[in-house]
Amino acid sequence: MMTKIPYKTYLTEEEIPKQWYNLRADMKEQHDPMLHPGTLQPLSAEDLYPIFCEELARQEMDSTTRYIDIPEGVLDYYKTFRPSPLIRAYNLEKALGTPAKIYFKFEGNNTSGSHKLNAAAAMAYYAKEQGLKSLTTETGAGQWGTALSMACSFFGLDLTVFMVKVSFNQKPFRKAVMETYGANIIPSPSDTTEIGRAILAKNPNTGGSLGCAISEAIELSMKDDSCRYALGSVLNQVLLHQSIIGLESKIAMDKLGEYPDIIIGCAGGGSNLGGLIAPYMQDKITGKADPRIIAVEPASCPSLTRGKYAYDFCDTGKITPLAKMYTLGSGFMPSPNHAGGLRYHGMSPILSKLYHDGYMEAISVDQSTVFEAAVLFAQKEQILPAPESAHAIYGAIQEALKCKETGEEKTILFGLTGTGYFDMQAYMQYHDKTMTDQVPTDEDLEVGFCSLPNLD
Amino acid sequence: MMTKIPYKTYLTEEEIPKQWYNLRADMKEQHDPMLHPGTLQPLSAEDLYPIFCEELARQEMDSTTRYIDIPEGVLDYYKTFRPSPLIRAYNLEKALGTPAKIYFKFEGNNTSGSHKLNAAAAMAYYAKEQGLKSLTTETGAGQWGTALSMACSFFGLDLTVFMVKVSFNQKPFRKAVMETYGANIIPSPSDTTEIGRAILAKNPNTGGSLGCAISEAIELSMKDDSCRYALGSVLNQVLLHQSIIGLESKIAMDKLGEYPDIIIGCAGGGSNLGGLIAPYMQDKITGKADPRIIAVEPASCPSLTRGKYAYDFCDTGKITPLAKMYTLGSGFMPSPNHAGGLRYHGMSPILSKLYHDGYMEAISVDQSTVFEAAVLFAQKEQILPAPESAHAIYGAIQEALKCKETGEEKTILFGLTGTGYFDMQAYMQYHDKTMTDQVPTDEDLEVGFCSLPNLD
Repeated sequence: MMTKIPYKTYLTEEEIPKQWYNLRADMKEQHDPMLHPGTLQPLSAEDLYPIFCEELARQEMDSTTRYIDIPEGVLDYYKTFRPSPLIRAYNLEKALGTPAKIYFKFEGNNTSGSHKLNAAAAMAYYAKEQGLKSLTTETGAGQWGTALSMACSFFGLDLTVFMVKVSFNQKPFRKAVMETYGANIIPSPSDTTEIGRAILAKNPNTGGSLGCAISEAIELSMKDDSCRYALGSVLNQVLLHQSIIGLESKIAMDKLGEYPDIIIGCAGGGSNLGGLIAPYMQDKITGKADPRIIAVEPASCPSLTRGKYAYDFCDTGKITPLAKMYTLGSGFMPSPNHAGGLRYHGMSPILSKLYHDGYMEAISVDQSTVFEAAVLFAQKEQILPAPESAHAIYGAIQEALKCKETGEEKTILFGLTGTGYFDMQAYMQYHDKTMTDQVPTDEDLEVGFCSLPNLD
Repeated sequence: MMTKIPYKTYLTEEEIPKQWYNLRADMKEQHDPMLHPGTLQPLSAEDLYPIFCEELARQEMDSTTRYIDIPEGVLDYYKTFRPSPLIRAYNLEKALGTPAKIYFKFEGNNTSGSHKLNAAAAMAYYAKEQGLKSLTTETGAGQWGTALSMACSFFGLDLTVFMVKVSFNQKPFRKAVMETYGANIIPSPSDTTEIGRAILAKNPNTGGSLGCAISEAIELSMKDDSCRYALGSVLNQVLLHQSIIGLESKIAMDKLGEYPDIIIGCAGGGSNLGGLIAPYMQDKITGKADPRIIAVEPASCPSLTRGKYAYDFCDTGKITPLAKMYTLGSGFMPSPNHAGGLRYHGMSPILSKLYHDGYMEAISVDQSTVFEAAVLFAQKEQILPAPESAHAIYGAIQEALKCKETGEEKTILFGLTGTGYFDMQAYMQYHDKTMTDQVPTDEDLEVGFCSLPNLD
C-alpha cells in the first residue's frame, strides 16, 4: 500500500451494496428442506404465508436467485445506520505483539446495538408493503427485540414483543428502549396466549424460555390476518439480509488491497456469522480463494462442536417446522450464560450444511475466557463489546497469537456484532469474580438429544 | 448541489483537523481573569500547576495563540472514535414537514457515549507526557467519568473517580463500564478525604453533589505529586479541546456547500456548546458571517437565562478559583433533572462573556418537553439521544417549525452530544408519566444568589 491503512474504512452511501447475496445459489449441495410439523412433508413458500409475510416466505425458499435487489425503502433506512466501519485493530495488534493484521467489521454503532437491524429492516419493510398492520416476535437478550422495535417504528407498524420473563425482569432498560420505539412488551410466559397459560398453569414461577416466547409470538400472530411473525436468526431469509455485512466488508477490504486469510464470527443461530462470511464462502465454494472460516460458540451451548446433525424443531414448544441442522435438541436447557444471543439449541441450516460439508471450522470457549478477551479489547480498541461479539474477539486473538509464534503476517477479519452497554450485569460479575463457567456434561447433552424427533 | 446530500458525511482520517482552535484569540474582549480563592488576585498558569498538569495550565491561560497543535498521540487516539459523522436529519425534516435543512454533528458513537472523550484524550495524554502516574476526577451522570476512564486506560494512567453517591447507587452500570477501563470508583462523599468525612459527619445520609465530589477529587490529587486533577467542562482548556467538534463540522459542511443559518447546542458547563460553535463564532466575531447561535438549557438549572453575571466559585465547597460567569450561585441546588450533565450552577467564562456581549441567544426548556423531542427524534432518526442532547434537539425542532410557518429554507446545525443508553430510567419515567418538571421559583434562585461571594 502507498499510504498507511486508516483505522476506519467507511464506504460512501453510494457504495452500499444494492443487492443482498444469496449464498444458497452457489452451494454445491442444498441443505435438506424444512418439514411441515404435522405432515413431515417438505414445506412450500405458500405453507409459510400464514406465518411470514409473502415476500419473506419466498426468500426463505429461494435457493437459485444469486442476488436479490434490496428495495429502495430498505436502502433508505439502511442509510440511517449504514455503512458500518471496517476497523483495523492497530492497538490490539500492538498489545498482542503480533505480526498479524486484524480487521473487524463493527455493526454496533446503532441504537439496537447490533447487526440485528439489517434483517429487522427488511422484515418491517416487506410487512408494510404487504399491507400488514403489525408484527410479533420474541426476544431474549433484547438485541433483536430492540432492532425490530426500531424498524417497526420507522415503517409504521405495531409490534408485540414476547420477552423471556427472566430477561424482562433483569433488563428493564432494554424494555424501556423498545417502549421508546412504541413496542408492546409482554413478559413470557404470559396469560395472553393459550400456550402461555398452559405453561403458567403447570409452572407459575417459571422464568420462561426463548422457545416458549417463540410459541407465544406465533400464536398471537395467527389470530390476526393483518399480523405476521418475525424471527431474527437461523432462517435463510435472515442470512440473506445479513449478507450486507460481508458484502460491505469485502468492498472495503478490496479498497485496501486486502483479502482475509481467516474469517471469524460468533455463532448462536448464525445470523451474523452467515452474513459476514457470505461473499468469502462464495469464493471458497467456487474455488476463487481458500480462506479459513471459523465459528466461535459458547461452551455452554455448543451446537456445532458437540451437537448432532439432525432434523429438529426450531422452538422448545415443537410447533414450528422442522429443520435439518446441528442441534443440541429443542429440549436442551443451556446453563445461564450472559451471551444470551448465543443460547440457542440449533444452528442455521445453511451454516450447518456448510460445516457438515467441511467448509467451516468451529471452536467453543467458556464464558470467563470470553470476558477476558472482551476487557482486553475494550481497553485497547476502546469499544465495549457485547458478550456475543467477544466470542469472535477471542477467536481472533487466538489466531493472532499463533501468528506471533510462527511469525506469519496473516490477515484476520472478524465480526464485531455489537456493543455491551446493556450487558453490564455480566461485566460486573466478571469484575466481581462471581462469573461461572457452566459447560454441559455428556449427560446434560443426552437429555437434549432425547428430545430430538425420531424420523428414521 | 449536483447530487443529493448524503445522510452521513464522514471526513477521512487525513481530514481530521491537526490543530485545536482557541476562540479567545479572536474575541474582541477577554473574560475577566480567574481569581485565587485565598488572595482574590488574578491567577497565573503557575498557580494552577499543583492542580492541573502544566501544559493544561498553560492552555487554560492562553488567550493569544489562535491554533494549537494537537499532539500526534492525541490524534492517534482520536482515530479510535473520530471523525464523527455530520448527519442530515432527512427523516426528522419529513416528520416535521419543514422546508428547513437540519444537520446534526453526532458525538455519541463511542463507548463513553458522548463528546467528553475529546477533552479526556488531551488530559490523559498531557498527564502521561509530564510523567504523572494518576489522575482524579468527579462524575455526576457518568459520561465524563467514563470518558476519562477510557483515556486513562489507553494512555496508561491510574484514575480515581468520585461519583456523586446518588448516581453511584442509581447507575451501577456506569460504574461497571468505568471499572472495565480500570478506574477506581468512590461514592462521594466518602471517608477517604477530609472534606468527605466532614460532610458525612454533618449529614451521614447525604446523596452527595457534584460540588462535593469536585472538592474530594482535588483534595486527593493534592496529596500525591505524581497525581493531578482533571475537569471535563467549564474550563477554557476544555473548550479548546472540544473545538474539534466545530472544526470537523465546518469542514464537512463546506464539502456539502452548506453554511448554517442557526447553530444550536445544549448548555450545562459549556463543553459541547463551546466546541461546536467555535469556528462559527470566529466568523461572527470577525464579521465573515452572522449565524444565530442558540444555547438551550434546562428550566431546572437556568444559568444563562436566569442567572447573574458575577464572580463565583466553581464548586459548592468553595475551594476552587473564582470565575466570572453566569451563575445561579454555588449554593444553588438544582431540582432533580435527568439531564445530569446540565446540572451545573455556572457556565463557561468564555461562553458567559460572549452571551453577555450579545453574540449568543439562550432559551430554557422543561424536562418533559425535552423528552417529547427526544422520543420523536429517536423514532425518526433512529438514534436514542442523551437527555442533555435532547435539549438541542428541542431547540432545532422549534426553529424548524418556525421555518414551516414562514416557508424559509434555513440551514440548522445542532450538536447531538451523546446517546441515552445509560439514561433509560429517565425514559421510563417519561413513558410512565411520572416525570415532573421542576422549575426553580424566584425564591429558590435567591437562595443560590445569597451564596455568591461579595467582591464589591
